Amino acid sequence: MQLSDHRIAVLVDKSFEDLEFWVPVMRLREAGAEVIIAGREAETTFTGKHGLTAETVVAARDLEADDLDAVVVPGGWAPDKLRRDEGVTSLVREMDAQNKIVAQICHAGLVGISAGIVEGRPATGSQGIKDDLENAGAEWVDEAAFQDGNLVWGRVVKDIPAFCRTLVTALQS
Amino acid sequence: MQLSDHRIAVLVDKSFEDLEFWVPVMRLREAGAEVIIAGREAETTFTGKHGLTAETVVAARDLEADDLDAVVVPGGWAPDKLRRDEGVTSLVREMDAQNKIVAQICHAGLVGISAGIVEGRPATGSQGIKDDLENAGAEWVDEAAFQDGNLVWGRVVKDIPAFCRTLVTALQS
Repeated sequence: MQLSDHRIAVLVDKSFEDLEFWVPVMRLREAGAEVIIAGREAETTFTGKHGLTAETVVAARDLEADDLDAVVVPGGWAPDKLRRDEGVTSLVREMDAQNKIVAQICHAGLVGISAGIVEGRPATGSQGIKDDLENAGAEWVDEAAFQDGNLVWGRVVKDIPAFCRTLVTALQS
Repeated sequence: MQLSDHRIAVLVDKSFEDLEFWVPVMRLREAGAEVIIAGREAETTFTGKHGLTAETVVAARDLEADDLDAVVVPGGWAPDKLRRDEGVTSLVREMDAQNKIVAQICHAGLVGISAGIVEGRPATGSQGIKDDLENAGAEWVDEAAFQDGNLVWGRVVKDIPAFCRTLVTALQS
């Protein structure tokens, strides 16, 4: 399978966007990747905005960027919680420093802002964080999904297919 | 994109299994397919078992097998409703007669039973319909997902990645 040698952390927290989390998780597993569901703490179960659930297996602070190929951040309200955690922001910052894939969709850019990885780079997501991305020095792009170096961006729920396509392509190259 | 010339109907009804419906829909769109959400009636919105929603655009009786490459049936309690509708069962029966892909996961085999397409063939799904599949003449197979000619089968929610992988492979060949 295409990504059978890949280890990918997918972050989750309270009120995550159900499909922005679960569709990439299922898609990466389809491609053979090992998906590690991570958050502020291990073994915590969260309910998404619409009622699906997800459980972390590990705290982000206990993951090493050296051992991962990518980190994926879903939207919903989860990024508002995730961005407050130094374990999360250091992991995202270190992944970026190692030129590894950091994928963000919808409100996920809030994590990128707090990790300090968006300045001077194109970015997209929910209209609700456009001003925050621009104030952090990113250049707002109104596209369904795109890759910019090691960063993969997706806009909103209806753009999940384009986000997954871009993510899988980025991981294969 | 791999499936950009494909038109695929995905059926939905009350209390559908949220991820068994939405993950294949997003996956097929990722591959460029045109996804047509269909059910007993057009323009009806349903809520899944866990709270996600989905809206039909067309009634199954108004779809022609000639115009489709595949039909996908999710699980949850939706198959219990879908199987009662002659528009649904004739579409599934005609797709099978034309040797086109019919994909069923979890409780979806209930639709295959009522469409009369499972006799003498291997099948899988939720343990809850094992007896009904066997009584209809199918041979129960305990596998995550598999293809048998034009039929694609998936077992349960955790097998969605294997189901999608098998489905996309079947559609490409």
